[in-house]
Amino acid sequence: MTAPRPLPTPPASPPAAEPPANGLPPVARLSELLASPTDRRRFLTRAAALGVTLPSAGALLGCETREHDGTAARSRGTAGTAGAAGTAGGQDQGHEAHQPGGRSNDDAAPAGVRPPDYKVYDAALPPVAPGSRVRIEMVARELPVHLTRDLVVPAWTFDGTIPGPVVHVRVGQTVEFTLRNEGQVPHSMDFHAAQIDPKQAFAPVLPGKSISYTFTPRYPGAFLYHCGTQPVLMHIGSGMYGAIIVDPVRPLPKAREFVLVQSEFYIGKDESGAPRMDYQKMLDELPDHVAFNGIPNQYQDAPLVVRKGERVRFYVVNAGPSHPCSFHVVGEQFDTVYLGAPPGNPIHGVQTFMVAPGGGMIFELECDVAGDFPFVNHGFGHGQKGAIGVLRVQ
Amino acid sequence: MTAPRPLPTPPASPPAAEPPANGLPPVARLSELLASPTDRRRFLTRAAALGVTLPSAGALLGCETREHDGTAARSRGTAGTAGAAGTAGGQDQGHEAHQPGGRSNDDAAPAGVRPPDYKVYDAALPPVAPGSRVRIEMVARELPVHLTRDLVVPAWTFDGTIPGPVVHVRVGQTVEFTLRNEGQVPHSMDFHAAQIDPKQAFAPVLPGKSISYTFTPRYPGAFLYHCGTQPVLMHIGSGMYGAIIVDPVRPLPKAREFVLVQSEFYIGKDESGAPRMDYQKMLDELPDHVAFNGIPNQYQDAPLVVRKGERVRFYVVNAGPSHPCSFHVVGEQFDTVYLGAPPGNPIHGVQTFMVAPGGGMIFELECDVAGDFPFVNHGFGHGQKGAIGVLRVQ
Amino acid sequence: MTAPRPLPTPPASPPAAEPPANGLPPVARLSELLASPTDRRRFLTRAAALGVTLPSAGALLGCETREHDGTAARSRGTAGTAGAAGTAGGQDQGHEAHQPGGRSNDDAAPAGVRPPDYKVYDAALPPVAPGSRVRIEMVARELPVHLTRDLVVPAWTFDGTIPGPVVHVRVGQTVEFTLRNEGQVPHSMDFHAAQIDPKQAFAPVLPGKSISYTFTPRYPGAFLYHCGTQPVLMHIGSGMYGAIIVDPVRPLPKAREFVLVQSEFYIGKDESGAPRMDYQKMLDELPDHVAFNGIPNQYQDAPLVVRKGERVRFYVVNAGPSHPCSFHVVGEQFDTVYLGAPPGNPIHGVQTFMVAPGGGMIFELECDVAGDFPFVNHGFGHGQKGAIGVLRVQ
Repeated sequence: MTAPRPLPTPPASPPAAEPPANGLPPVARLSELLASPTDRRRFLTRAAALGVTLPSAGALLGCETREHDGTAARSRGTAGTAGAAGTAGGQDQGHEAHQPGGRSNDDAAPAGVRPPDYKVYDAALPPVAPGSRVRIEMVARELPVHLTRDLVVPAWTFDGTIPGPVVHVRVGQTVEFTLRNEGQVPHSMDFHAAQIDPKQAFAPVLPGKSISYTFTPRYPGAFLYHCGTQPVLMHIGSGMYGAIIVDPVRPLPKAREFVLVQSEFYIGKDESGAPRMDYQKMLDELPDHVAFNGIPNQYQDAPLVVRKGERVRFYVVNAGPSHPCSFHVVGEQFDTVYLGAPPGNPIHGVQTFMVAPGGGMIFELECDVAGDFPFVNHGFGHGQKGAIGVLRVQ
Repeated sequence: MTAPRPLPTPPASPPAAEPPANGLPPVARLSELLASPTDRRRFLTRAAALGVTLPSAGALLGCETREHDGTAARSRGTAGTAGAAGTAGGQDQGHEAHQPGGRSNDDAAPAGVRPPDYKVYDAALPPVAPGSRVRIEMVARELPVHLTRDLVVPAWTFDGTIPGPVVHVRVGQTVEFTLRNEGQVPHSMDFHAAQIDPKQAFAPVLPGKSISYTFTPRYPGAFLYHCGTQPVLMHIGSGMYGAIIVDPVRPLPKAREFVLVQSEFYIGKDESGAPRMDYQKMLDELPDHVAFNGIPNQYQDAPLVVRKGERVRFYVVNAGPSHPCSFHVVGEQFDTVYLGAPPGNPIHGVQTFMVAPGGGMIFELECDVAGDFPFVNHGFGHGQKGAIGVLRVQ
Repeated sequence: MTAPRPLPTPPASPPAAEPPANGLPPVARLSELLASPTDRRRFLTRAAALGVTLPSAGALLGCETREHDGTAARSRGTAGTAGAAGTAGGQDQGHEAHQPGGRSNDDAAPAGVRPPDYKVYDAALPPVAPGSRVRIEMVARELPVHLTRDLVVPAWTFDGTIPGPVVHVRVGQTVEFTLRNEGQVPHSMDFHAAQIDPKQAFAPVLPGKSISYTFTPRYPGAFLYHCGTQPVLMHIGSGMYGAIIVDPVRPLPKAREFVLVQSEFYIGKDESGAPRMDYQKMLDELPDHVAFNGIPNQYQDAPLVVRKGERVRFYVVNAGPSHPCSFHVVGEQFDTVYLGAPPGNPIHGVQTFMVAPGGGMIFELECDVAGDFPFVNHGFGHGQKGAIGVLRVQ
């Protein structure tokens, strides 16, 4: 353990100023709105009238994006790899792969804002952060992102990608977290690995503001983080989530480790016919796409590659927002699935197990046969919409 | 253990008269009806022609309600608290809170029948019934109920509330149960804590009749009870369910105990435009509301309050009728979730776990941090429709 | 253990000729097609233009069916009962019950192809195959089948029934499997009990061709098998699945054993108005029917009969394609549910547990009370669509 690092400078204006009493600011109004949603279109109209901002290209076009890449790079540096450059450069390279990069001319992007280049999200678990205190900073960013090579949609993100960066820590470490909101609407951060008063820590952060809090993960496991600002369905459905992986104090057996965050996408059209995240479709719960790590089918073209004889550990986190993930590897069986905190709570000899939306489980298998093994959501109404990748054993 | 109580007088006309051979009376006809439901509207028309009564304001307007409050109070007295007035008066008060009370002038109520006042359903687990034999009587009642302050819907209930009263017993006790049907259509009672021939015990009870049976719970746990009359989807979907909590012989560690029954509501309109439970929407499986204990978001305005340092035990029962409950407490983690009968079958260090429709699980956490902790169905397509409450740790 | 049997003659043309690099032939094209399914009707049109064959009566009318009954009988003989005639004739009779039999004049059948007679699918687990090597041959057949007595739908099957035959083996045995494709489109076989390179073993088999591979199940349990040809959703949704039950080396305690394969059916209409499996409805995920062993409600008219005092073991396999099965027995409780490989991974005292689509679990109970006990999917939006049967304890 290295010495504690200094805490980040507190934000100029304290973030606790704006949230109302119960830490769920607009929920009272929203629950009233939602109380009689027989006509949900009417709800949306009324929601807009009450100042509830819905995701739309228009709302995002004016967002300040110039400083974001640097910010994101900085936060990535602190998230999983601070001080680990010497030992983990190679793996970190992979971790960098899902960063928004240079600008491309993409006809599908909304006028005025160009999305980051299409990039496969690196599924490799980054190395655990060193030291007893781990500084993590993320930026809430609203920007168009590639859902596929050809489909660009205005999104709400952490650090510009869907999902946000993987956080990897260990039980016993203290996480010093800061969220800066560079978006146009309030956002917040809810770590499922934190035991903390959400009224304070997960409070909404107004545009231009930031919030900092500290937590010490108690249990190891694969946990979700997500924006918890109301309506949560919209913020998750618009892309604001990621995985925080917490190692036990005594590490699990050596393995090739991958993080898969499953999520659903509900795509409608704005007034101009351009694609947008559609809150009404989120309420209707029939997704258009389901993906591991934000891009449907991305690991079919770019399989996850391991060597024969290696043990593979999948940290499967289900961001939802709404449906379970029935995780399965074609041609393989899991020798261990951890239903709770590892190394306890194991079950063995499993073909498929459901991960709850808002939950996470760890799936392990021995790759003692070479071949191409698709990993899927075996709820195939969803699997077929993009939750299929390939594990290549060489 | 106190001495056995006398059994209730058997009903004048034996309830076994009307049910056909397999204990599932209209199921054969219904399964034929359901065999080609490509046009479900046509199914409903044909169902009506065959005498299958669908929930509607009209069917409920004529129901006799004068004796019901007294009846319900009587059944409540026997359910969880008989003879326990001395030791549990305070908690029982809470338990009484979800009783239908006096009449209000509510414009949303169907003409001629006024719904009981809007009341928050008390989530506190009532004390376990004393004695070796526990008499429980419930009344099947069809009446308008408040789904929210502003939304009143004709419903089918046990004892006039959704959910019905919490039953709390212990392994080794014998439950002597009586159901009286004061409604207009057949109803029945299926306790998931009972091992008994459903053909006899869970048989449909005609209007004006009653049925009595006895069972001895074998396993501790959080179990569902519900009306099992065909079509079960309609009876559950119209409000007929509740929780029976069975303690192990050796009690679980002391904790603040709450019962949360999650359920979905599917609201359509009758011919006059008034809201009604909609069977077609139940079949379509996209709920309008999802609630803990019958009223969406009720525990946001009226949080469940505990003291810092207390252990909290949630008995989460999922009435469905159709969807899982991905139970999660924001800002907390469950140190224990019992997948089966406690104190066995535990998993530890869990953020979220799915409770099956028709199932129940027990979720425990240590409230060692003060704050407001929302408990949610993290399947947010459903959570956002009302399955959000607040646990306040003071 | 008897001596190994000779392997089947390899097919004349090697099956590995046609599948492309990643073993998931049309998936790249399909994922592109599926990338923007805002207009799914358009997807289907485009899919057809790209040569993706959709299930339809028309595509099936020309299929060669003359040799099929004999073939199926032959494969049945090797699957679960080879060499076991002396000891298991009685049970095998039951196993034969779901074979397609003689032809009937059924007005609902497509012109030119008559469906096999309506028959209840035998749920009894056939005896485990003897010997250290077990030869299993199945035939991919496209033919109309009875979903109910009155509803006949063109389907894709293994051996002419939905589900296909139950395979029953033991850990330590080697399975020598051959799939012959007598259909019009490519099919394949994915055994969840096999650890094998799916790129080779589960590769698509062209019409008129066959494939053979060998596997040795590592874990006991209740596993799914299904066609894994893209789009998998369509092949599962059209009827191509079944159960492979793997016993532990040391047998589980004696019990009456039943296999229940739950699946969903999505029924549309072809151009002539005749019913057909509807891929668009599969994508929309609202099933018209849900069944145990292929025929909604079949075990209500023909209950599974056991004697009082017997232990019952349900091998519940969920073919999906999309939804969980919340398995419950009315009036009973499971003393044991195996979440993973038996005899490990048990939980006890369970009312209901969810089986993932693509998963399987084992549910056990003691039948110490006589009566009629409905077994159901307690997700009643699905249960009500046909996932209800009766266990009769005499």
